[in-house]
Amino acid sequence: MDKYSGKRIVMVGSGNVACQLSKALLDAGYQIIQVYSRTAAHARALAVTLNSSWTDQVSEITEQGDLYILAVSDSAIPQLADQINIKSQLVVHTSGSMEMNIFRGKAKNYGVFYPLQTFSKNRTVDFKNIPVAVEGNNKESEATLSHLGQQVSERIIKLNSTDRLYLHLAAVFACNFTNHLYHLASLILDKKNIPFDLLLPLIHETAGKIRTIHPGEGQTGPAVRNDQIVIKKHLDLLSFSPEIRELYDLLSRSIYSLAHDR
Amino acid sequence: MDKYSGKRIVMVGSGNVACQLSKALLDAGYQIIQVYSRTAAHARALAVTLNSSWTDQVSEITEQGDLYILAVSDSAIPQLADQINIKSQLVVHTSGSMEMNIFRGKAKNYGVFYPLQTFSKNRTVDFKNIPVAVEGNNKESEATLSHLGQQVSERIIKLNSTDRLYLHLAAVFACNFTNHLYHLASLILDKKNIPFDLLLPLIHETAGKIRTIHPGEGQTGPAVRNDQIVIKKHLDLLSFSPEIRELYDLLSRSIYSLAHDR
Repeated sequence: MDKYSGKRIVMVGSGNVACQLSKALLDAGYQIIQVYSRTAAHARALAVTLNSSWTDQVSEITEQGDLYILAVSDSAIPQLADQINIKSQLVVHTSGSMEMNIFRGKAKNYGVFYPLQTFSKNRTVDFKNIPVAVEGNNKESEATLSHLGQQVSERIIKLNSTDRLYLHLAAVFACNFTNHLYHLASLILDKKNIPFDLLLPLIHETAGKIRTIHPGEGQTGPAVRNDQIVIKKHLDLLSFSPEIRELYDLLSRSIYSLAHDR
Repeated sequence: MDKYSGKRIVMVGSGNVACQLSKALLDAGYQIIQVYSRTAAHARALAVTLNSSWTDQVSEITEQGDLYILAVSDSAIPQLADQINIKSQLVVHTSGSMEMNIFRGKAKNYGVFYPLQTFSKNRTVDFKNIPVAVEGNNKESEATLSHLGQQVSERIIKLNSTDRLYLHLAAVFACNFTNHLYHLASLILDKKNIPFDLLLPLIHETAGKIRTIHPGEGQTGPAVRNDQIVIKKHLDLLSFSPEIRELYDLLSRSIYSLAHDR
């Protein structure tokens, strides 16, 4: 047990980030003393797994915490930061896109603890592998958050709010947009009742090969070769959806222009 | 050794598909008797690893093969099919987008053997996990190709040329376009000198979770929530590239409309 292991944490939120971060903190020896959610059943469900108390009333959030983690949607952060009675304790949010200074004037010690991962219900991820971007409003806050991060993850990076937004944007491309492409691929296969799982080895390899080959080097397919015959065949198949057709066209042009430095 | 293990194969091509397929066939007990490439050094290099002969002259391609595999670019297939002197032997190409009937009138027994994977130099993939779509112009050709496929892969599917083109199109989304999104993500991080490898766990999880959660169910991020505040922040960051900005906008709209059935 290190000097921080006794830190008393209040988890504000009960969604996927709150659940998985709480569990990682508990495993690292921290104590979650209370869970808040505006939905009582959610607060209670998470609290049971953490052996903590819970509440669905902001006014009942305890003042006994050392660290308050607001693992809630961006839109909920400002109001909660206003309502929670925080004195000198440390308060953080876990958002990639919300600036740290949302807490300015509302708390003395504050920061950001942003785990870079996509969290889904019923799917546990190993927190050790999740990079965490931390930011603090002063050296002590930042040191505390870096230390906390190191207890749950092997990869901590200090980023200011602007840089964190760039990281968040990159993550939207690498995760949300990528998942959407998987979805579009599944819709295309549905047209001919071809099973989606045929694509899994290809998807796995595509995601895996960037560990050794930079995506700029490893681009393959008709677009980078400017193979207009194949591109035309594909665009014809996509006549069922002008929207997907436009995406195909734009992505293909983008691949070509990037590869040929135009 | 099964009854096909003595089949004599002529590999026409020396690129990534030719190399990796040849090796898998050799491992499965087949004999590659000759390698052709228009570039002598490439033909020789592959032939050495296969203990086969080689040539860089189409006219010198042996007539002693039982199976001729044209693992070359789409544009090279028609001419090679014309030039190679094939009588009753089986000839196939390995393309996802070229119809089988390119061989009509040029051979008696022909088909397609399409391994669904992205092949890169210096990166060996386990052929066992690669789905192979096969098509034959008659029952015997198709049976031979299915059998051949089963010797190198655990997943064989019979697809006609139209359905194979759909599969190829889906693969462009799941692989080529996805890799391009990784590339764009890296360009965004470069703006702030943030290391790209921070994204690897996220990319790994995004590709992995579709094994248990359909991409249509597992969509996350600002677009599916229609979080216009975050979307606006991201679009502002992308002012450095109108092209990437347009892609962001189009992908976000596509995610939203698909999730909300419009």
